[in-house]
Amino acid sequence: MYSPTIESLIEQFAQLPGIGRKSAERIAFYVLDNMTEADAEMMASTISLAKKSVKFCEICQNLTDISPCHICTSNKRDRSVVCVVEEPKDVSAIEKTGQYNGLYHVLHGAISPIDDISPDDIKIKELLLRLSDGEINEVIMATNPTVNGTATAVYIQRLLKPMGVKVTRIAHGIPMGSDIEYADEMTLSKALEARTEMK
Amino acid sequence: MYSPTIESLIEQFAQLPGIGRKSAERIAFYVLDNMTEADAEMMASTISLAKKSVKFCEICQNLTDISPCHICTSNKRDRSVVCVVEEPKDVSAIEKTGQYNGLYHVLHGAISPIDDISPDDIKIKELLLRLSDGEINEVIMATNPTVNGTATAVYIQRLLKPMGVKVTRIAHGIPMGSDIEYADEMTLSKALEARTEMK
Repeated sequence: MYSPTIESLIEQFAQLPGIGRKSAERIAFYVLDNMTEADAEMMASTISLAKKSVKFCEICQNLTDISPCHICTSNKRDRSVVCVVEEPKDVSAIEKTGQYNGLYHVLHGAISPIDDISPDDIKIKELLLRLSDGEINEVIMATNPTVNGTATAVYIQRLLKPMGVKVTRIAHGIPMGSDIEYADEMTLSKALEARTEMK
Repeated sequence: MYSPTIESLIEQFAQLPGIGRKSAERIAFYVLDNMTEADAEMMASTISLAKKSVKFCEICQNLTDISPCHICTSNKRDRSVVCVVEEPKDVSAIEKTGQYNGLYHVLHGAISPIDDISPDDIKIKELLLRLSDGEINEVIMATNPTVNGTATAVYIQRLLKPMGVKVTRIAHGIPMGSDIEYADEMTLSKALEARTEMK
């Protein structure tokens, strides 16, 4: 259908998450037909440069330009609390709330026997290493409330127990602004179970 | 929120059509966290190379690696019919039907006074040039059934009238497999107006 160069450009975009064949065609034609050569060149070099310069923070394992990252080196953050998340984008989701002032630890995945992802494949030993100096006294498990995320939280909690560090789990319940009628049974059970007294 | 390099990568993806800020973040993290450096480098170089090597076909103005393109130089196509479309992706949509065997002409837009796009801004003079040798005896107007697309079709039809070439317009009506109940009034009026006798 398309010439080889156009086809390979479409394929490059089609491999990205959330982009199907149709969207990839649309994007490829946008690049070829609507962008200036300078803009396309800028896009290509940004991808190349970002991939080369962005690395994992040696402390929290989040993606960063400089290691240790600006959160790990900040003296305005509470260094006694670490929030453990699965992915870098979870860090930005929590940062956007403006409600959390501690540190983070990015696991880069969750334990998943089906996908052959064992505890050694995610950044758990890096977390243990951080706890060894005794500066951290609470670890908040903010992995996803999925089978794998929950299993990972429980696995880490058991590892940390003998170290005497407090391990907490973010609350699960009815999302704000949503309708109880449409909540699934699991969420509703969790919400009832974790009810708090109104004062 | 993000480091400058990550932020600029997100912005690069966010400028593409159909990709919002949230999707751009997801794509950027995919590139940084899940792609190998070789794959990211391949993506960057494909964008760069495609932008440099893909050009407009000197005859039909479609995007192509080699000019004239493979459709314009094919000896299996009917050289007496030209189908006029707004964008390169319209050519592939029509090619996918497998029902058309003529040539194409890509306008790269439609006349739009509001957006300050005049007849000189789209590839109309290139179309007139193609008609001068008398080999073409039908021009099918397949611009979009929008205000601008229809105005462009009418504008070109008036230009071609004195040249004695037959100008046709693709049919508008109820899409196949859809429900008459949900057709808009414009489409339904067109469908009634253009009714054909059942034999």
